[in-house]
Amino acid sequence: MTEQANRCYRLRRRPRDAMIGEADLEFVEEAAPTIGAGQALVRTLMLSVDPTNRPWMADVRSYIAPVAIDAVMRGIGIGEVVESRREDMHAGDLVYGFTGWQDYAVADDAINELPFSVLPSPLPAPLSAFLGVLGHTGVTAYLGVEDIGRPQAGETMVVSGAAGAVGSVAGQLGKARGARVVGIAGSDEKCRHVIEDLGFDACINYKAPDWAERFDAATPDGIDVDFENVGGAVMDHILGRLNIGARIVLCGMISMYADYGSPAGWEGQFEIAQVLLQRATVRGFIVLDHPERFPEAIGHVAGLMGEGRLTYRETLVDGLENARDALNRLFRGENTGKMVVNVAAPLNATAPQAATTVVAGT
Amino acid sequence: MTEQANRCYRLRRRPRDAMIGEADLEFVEEAAPTIGAGQALVRTLMLSVDPTNRPWMADVRSYIAPVAIDAVMRGIGIGEVVESRREDMHAGDLVYGFTGWQDYAVADDAINELPFSVLPSPLPAPLSAFLGVLGHTGVTAYLGVEDIGRPQAGETMVVSGAAGAVGSVAGQLGKARGARVVGIAGSDEKCRHVIEDLGFDACINYKAPDWAERFDAATPDGIDVDFENVGGAVMDHILGRLNIGARIVLCGMISMYADYGSPAGWEGQFEIAQVLLQRATVRGFIVLDHPERFPEAIGHVAGLMGEGRLTYRETLVDGLENARDALNRLFRGENTGKMVVNVAAPLNATAPQAATTVVAGT
Repeated sequence: MTEQANRCYRLRRRPRDAMIGEADLEFVEEAAPTIGAGQALVRTLMLSVDPTNRPWMADVRSYIAPVAIDAVMRGIGIGEVVESRREDMHAGDLVYGFTGWQDYAVADDAINELPFSVLPSPLPAPLSAFLGVLGHTGVTAYLGVEDIGRPQAGETMVVSGAAGAVGSVAGQLGKARGARVVGIAGSDEKCRHVIEDLGFDACINYKAPDWAERFDAATPDGIDVDFENVGGAVMDHILGRLNIGARIVLCGMISMYADYGSPAGWEGQFEIAQVLLQRATVRGFIVLDHPERFPEAIGHVAGLMGEGRLTYRETLVDGLENARDALNRLFRGENTGKMVVNVAAPLNATAPQAATTVVAGT
Repeated sequence: MTEQANRCYRLRRRPRDAMIGEADLEFVEEAAPTIGAGQALVRTLMLSVDPTNRPWMADVRSYIAPVAIDAVMRGIGIGEVVESRREDMHAGDLVYGFTGWQDYAVADDAINELPFSVLPSPLPAPLSAFLGVLGHTGVTAYLGVEDIGRPQAGETMVVSGAAGAVGSVAGQLGKARGARVVGIAGSDEKCRHVIEDLGFDACINYKAPDWAERFDAATPDGIDVDFENVGGAVMDHILGRLNIGARIVLCGMISMYADYGSPAGWEGQFEIAQVLLQRATVRGFIVLDHPERFPEAIGHVAGLMGEGRLTYRETLVDGLENARDALNRLFRGENTGKMVVNVAAPLNATAPQAATTVVAGT
């Protein structure tokens, strides 16, 4: 094929401030890679923007090595195979994997941090769903609820980041298990969506001055399960209302991620002693540890969607050139549901349009 | 019986400083209680001094109500029945329970927070052992190691407060399971004791300027189990060395207890995100939840003692009038092993003398 331009983001330094800029993550244009035997060339169609992208840029001890300085930014995406010298991939296949923040990626199990997987054809749901509710964020919610939190009928489950990609699904899974589910989100409009569209029993805007009183009133019987996506002061308040034997699903701590590398350091937790005093369990997990659970999890979520018991929202940002801004917007809480970047339309593949997509203004 | 004087400590206000004084916990002399039908009068022989005594005095949400202002200080002790109007207790019986910090207690299941239990006669071990290695602190160590930490051969287990009543037993239980056990304690002499007398593989004095480097060198393969008695900065350092799937036995957070009620508040944990990133589990527990496990636990510990695989030290403070000081000394780290206050000698019962008791100077 003729030489293509490859637009990509390269990490020039580890971010020091809450918002990242061109000096941290530079947007450059290069020649697209060429492939050898056993490789396929993948054109990125859609990028997943996740809270964990931020710690990937920082020099903190994590579940995966930090992105190297001057390397292309790591990212999960969906792409279309445009050229293949692999037996298991053909031009037009839609694939899921670590595309990186770039137009063209090389699919090669020997070098990719996560092997690319081929999506079903024809695609049964919109492309973006496979990065969200039917992708890693949906599976994350499923594993946290079903393996760790296990809320029972009559119990109270709290979900922070309730309007986000993981929290929105986690809360609906909690409802499906019969629990009372109380969300925490960052605006009245998000709370309205969480209650009216997603069916949570209550949702509290943690930016309201009287949020703690409202939250306490919404959890009159205490808290049995905390599906924790945020950490920090809000989590401390939750810890102060745990019931004996509570389970804390430690899924994310987004309140700290943007402070990794900042001179002031990051926020602490001051109420961990409540885990002891209430005989609670805190358990961390990483969805990428469990590729074998994806079919089970996606089947469960898709089943509830088919029954009309689970729905989702997403926030679409158009253009790879806006990916860095999309990540900053995620950290400012400007997304509802899954944040995705639309990079290109498929050339040969087809996918249903998403009915629920909100196209974000720029 | 003739009226007896009852020396006791009454909580006059919630402590505000690290060290407690007469204005917090007043030592007074009153008339001893008299008993009615279904009650027994217990003369306190020995009092257990435990880190948890301190949060009992504070107005924090805990596993038990705070001691009420002007009430007698709550405490676990061993006493001798001096008068009984209960079928199940007779004069001369040695009993274990919430004697309180006083000379005379009333044993009455309807009013005691913990029912008194009668110890075996003749007593197979020194009195003090039933407050420590064969009492609630030994059972605490057993439950934490066997139910939560479960260190395996080849794994590394870390124990903070390694020279204390619980940590000393926990580490030896870890050794018996085949783990490499590394202690953390507050003096070189304690570390010597922990290694030479208790058989830990290593022990690091956290007050040494280079303690972190030494600790890292002593845990070259990372940490699989943290038996946590301390919390705070030392725990944060431990969290930074967790292996994937590590278990944190959240047994105590003594570094914070003395700050409950202080104007500055207490220390936070800054590395809880490592629990997520290393897919670790933190689990809290309270020994008083598990009275049914005492025989199993004590049997296990006594079995290891009989085989010469588990030993203990204790620090004895003489005189009820020195109990408050004993608690302050516990928080200054001046004990090795179980801290007990010797209140009185038995009148009718007999118990073996402890060979390993260190009588603390005043």
